[in-house]
Amino acid sequence: MIDLYSWNTPNGRKVSILLEELNVPYNVHAVDITKGEQLEAEFLTISPNNKIPAIRDNETGVTLMESGAILIYLAEKYGQFLPRENRIEIYEWLMWQMAGFGPMLGQAHHFLKYNRGVSTYAEERYGEEARRLYGVLDRRLEGRDYIIGEYTIADIACWPWVSRHEWQEIDLRDYPHVRKWYQRIAARPAVQRGYHVPDHVNQIPQG
Amino acid sequence: MIDLYSWNTPNGRKVSILLEELNVPYNVHAVDITKGEQLEAEFLTISPNNKIPAIRDNETGVTLMESGAILIYLAEKYGQFLPRENRIEIYEWLMWQMAGFGPMLGQAHHFLKYNRGVSTYAEERYGEEARRLYGVLDRRLEGRDYIIGEYTIADIACWPWVSRHEWQEIDLRDYPHVRKWYQRIAARPAVQRGYHVPDHVNQIPQG
Ligand SMILES: N[C@@H](CCC(=O)N[C@@H](CS)C(=O)NCC(=O)O)C(=O)O
Ligand SMILES: N[C@@H](CCC(=O)N[C@@H](CS)C(=O)NCC(=O)O)C(=O)O
Repeated sequence: MIDLYSWNTPNGRKVSILLEELNVPYNVHAVDITKGEQLEAEFLTISPNNKIPAIRDNETGVTLMESGAILIYLAEKYGQFLPRENRIEIYEWLMWQMAGFGPMLGQAHHFLKYNRGVSTYAEERYGEEARRLYGVLDRRLEGRDYIIGEYTIADIACWPWVSRHEWQEIDLRDYPHVRKWYQRIAARPAVQRGYHVPDHVNQIPQG
Repeated sequence: MIDLYSWNTPNGRKVSILLEELNVPYNVHAVDITKGEQLEAEFLTISPNNKIPAIRDNETGVTLMESGAILIYLAEKYGQFLPRENRIEIYEWLMWQMAGFGPMLGQAHHFLKYNRGVSTYAEERYGEEARRLYGVLDRRLEGRDYIIGEYTIADIACWPWVSRHEWQEIDLRDYPHVRKWYQRIAARPAVQRGYHVPDHVNQIPQG
């Protein structure tokens, strides 16, 4: 059995969506990051960077932080969504999500949604970077149903971040290929289940 | 032969250091990001996110952006610095570098070094995050010579970012385990060669 430590955020949802897609049983432990539960000593033994998501695989004893590493681990273990022949290309786009699309949209959330008014400079910087990154993804999805052609952990990593497009002040109609891809993935039952982990806090935003 | 597209930055140096460690021949193409060369059409076919580093492997035809994906590709191809039995733990810390230690220190460079004065709020935010991240790495290195015990691509990914500690206003004496690790790696001849790619712009900073 897998223990999942998570919260209703894009990085947390990546892992619950993958677990639902894989259809493997797992226990959810809600780590309320608005109350600082990610700083508790027991959690730090699993996630020394004090962030969700993290997992414990009770079959192997493996504990793991960093959503990108968790996606690779689970996809390899259960042999799905990481086809061997496209592995390197999937890593490339997974890294793009982990290093750019995630952290920079995270800064957009911080300055555009949570801390409006503290820095016009930072609002412009991260708003512009968000638009640049959506442009990169849109060009990549032109002529492709999924980032690597077929549905993989690269899509699962990016999709929950796009689901927060309103916080990023992004209108998906400006990115038509991203928009169709977003809706295609939102229609998957496993994505709908994984989105509401640990809790149902809102409907999946329309694209 | 490997074609490397790079510039003298932490992300570029990760790849040149690994290539030097592997002792494989490669051609260096300098992409001067201060002149916008990363936005040229030909480069975008290799690196659609318009960033260095990127590679072309002329033996396989593979082209690749994202330093983390390039490190995995090369380490797998040449069978070094990514021992199979520790693979997942290496991915975990490689992802930590790609998603946190890199992007957040990059923001520190932007606000503390290049754009002093535009936002006190952002200076404090990224200065504090830099110190938190160095603390995480310092605790990880307590009792270990390298991040995973032995020298791997996780170290190669983190080290060039630590070499910019001055820009981040970090005093390595506050992080004694990081400091010893930094000096240990700086002493490697391959690191000294890979640091000065594409050009020799300065000595490796002392820790
Ligand atoms: N690179 C990490 C980022 C994880 C992350 O940023 N988690 C956030 C929520 S989405 C968190 O736990 N924040 C609490 C904190 O930083 O204290 C990953 O992809 O797993
Ligand atoms: N996640 C990317 C980041 C690469 C990156 O940020 N490259 C910088 C130099 S260190 C760059 O090319 N900047 C030019 C630009 O953004 O236009 C990686 O690790 O390869």
